[in-house]
Amino acid sequence: MSEAREVDGAPKKAPMREVLAKAAFQLFLERGFERTTVDDIVARAGVGRRSFFRYFPSKEDAVFPDHESCLADMTGFLDAASDERDAVDVVCGGARLVLRMYAANPEFSVQRYRLTREVPGLRTYELSVVRRYERTLAGYLRRRWDRADDGALRAEVVAASVVAAHNNALRTWLRSGGEGDAEQAVDRALELVRRVWGEAEAAPAPAATDEEVVVMVATKGAPMWRVIQQVESALRND
Amino acid sequence: MSEAREVDGAPKKAPMREVLAKAAFQLFLERGFERTTVDDIVARAGVGRRSFFRYFPSKEDAVFPDHESCLADMTGFLDAASDERDAVDVVCGGARLVLRMYAANPEFSVQRYRLTREVPGLRTYELSVVRRYERTLAGYLRRRWDRADDGALRAEVVAASVVAAHNNALRTWLRSGGEGDAEQAVDRALELVRRVWGEAEAAPAPAATDEEVVVMVATKGAPMWRVIQQVESALRND
Repeated sequence: MSEAREVDGAPKKAPMREVLAKAAFQLFLERGFERTTVDDIVARAGVGRRSFFRYFPSKEDAVFPDHESCLADMTGFLDAASDERDAVDVVCGGARLVLRMYAANPEFSVQRYRLTREVPGLRTYELSVVRRYERTLAGYLRRRWDRADDGALRAEVVAASVVAAHNNALRTWLRSGGEGDAEQAVDRALELVRRVWGEAEAAPAPAATDEEVVVMVATKGAPMWRVIQQVESALRND
Repeated sequence: MSEAREVDGAPKKAPMREVLAKAAFQLFLERGFERTTVDDIVARAGVGRRSFFRYFPSKEDAVFPDHESCLADMTGFLDAASDERDAVDVVCGGARLVLRMYAANPEFSVQRYRLTREVPGLRTYELSVVRRYERTLAGYLRRRWDRADDGALRAEVVAASVVAAHNNALRTWLRSGGEGDAEQAVDRALELVRRVWGEAEAAPAPAATDEEVVVMVATKGAPMWRVIQQVESALRND
């Protein structure tokens, strides 16, 4: 933290990291990512060159200044989650933290999305970040499912599904220019994963007890007698 | 194609592209990826510097010389697939093409896997390639499901699941040093996705009619009266 000239001209105490990220982003929009140097950024922020590298390992990191803390939040969230909770619900909650980071600053998120589309190096950086979120979620699920035969496989597949659903809704929202309720859209998308994998997750549970389970599908318009017939035959012959 | 000295010393006609990739890979193993220059590679292959860039845009591309043709094969495979086939089956078939590329040359694949673990630039490159496969599969599913409300979302989630399952089995095989039957392992992993999403794919069908469906789960030991009670309340209140 230090006294720094805010880039909008108003003197104001702001964390150096934010000041640098803001200066960097303005320059990327003005001149393009490739043509902006770290020297340009520190000159705009009014600080020395070494300050930049104290906060960001690279220019790319300054474009995504909040992912590191979001990853830390996600890890903390997963560590704190009770094992009583449905594991798929928990990782969906973890993914929601990422969404909230984007939704907290729609204008910045939308501008950054457009910038990222244009700069291959930023797209690659983003892929690496997304992969880190996915690995964090998969690590949690692997631990929760470590006694299942296919636990590790299922953990990776479900984590990838959660990330894909989250990204689909997030991308739609970003493409629209940040219109509408992003959190609601992501919840809707995650619901697909929860519905499908929540069932898959529950499936091995009955095997632990000695009880058998019968699943019946009936058309709502069907007469009651027919449904009872189905039930009886399922309970008898299954 | 041209006469080129094979890196093992025996003179033999081999496609220039292969000769370059082989020379590059040997040098990467000997000296490390970062410390090998394009000049080293062309010297080892006995060709001019411009030949390298005629075949590979970058050093990274020479590490993964077959992904471009595999992506083309995948696209061709998906284009040729009948719309009568289960869409999830088709994309699983597409993923199998990638596995076959790795399995065709276990020793090279295992060595490359180890090299990739050590070089961040290669890991990033690999992420980009994986993403391209995923997008290719998702594009196919989107087309197949373009009339479903959540078709685009489902397409991305299923493509991500297929890729995650494929990669889980592939990685396990690579880590083991290429032991066992990789194709069988990938088939087993993909089976999880087919089982779960094959059902999910069929699910929207009833919505096309006006009939509503009730799904009930009952414990086999439950008394009949209780099951009927459940059925009745589901049919009434749902």
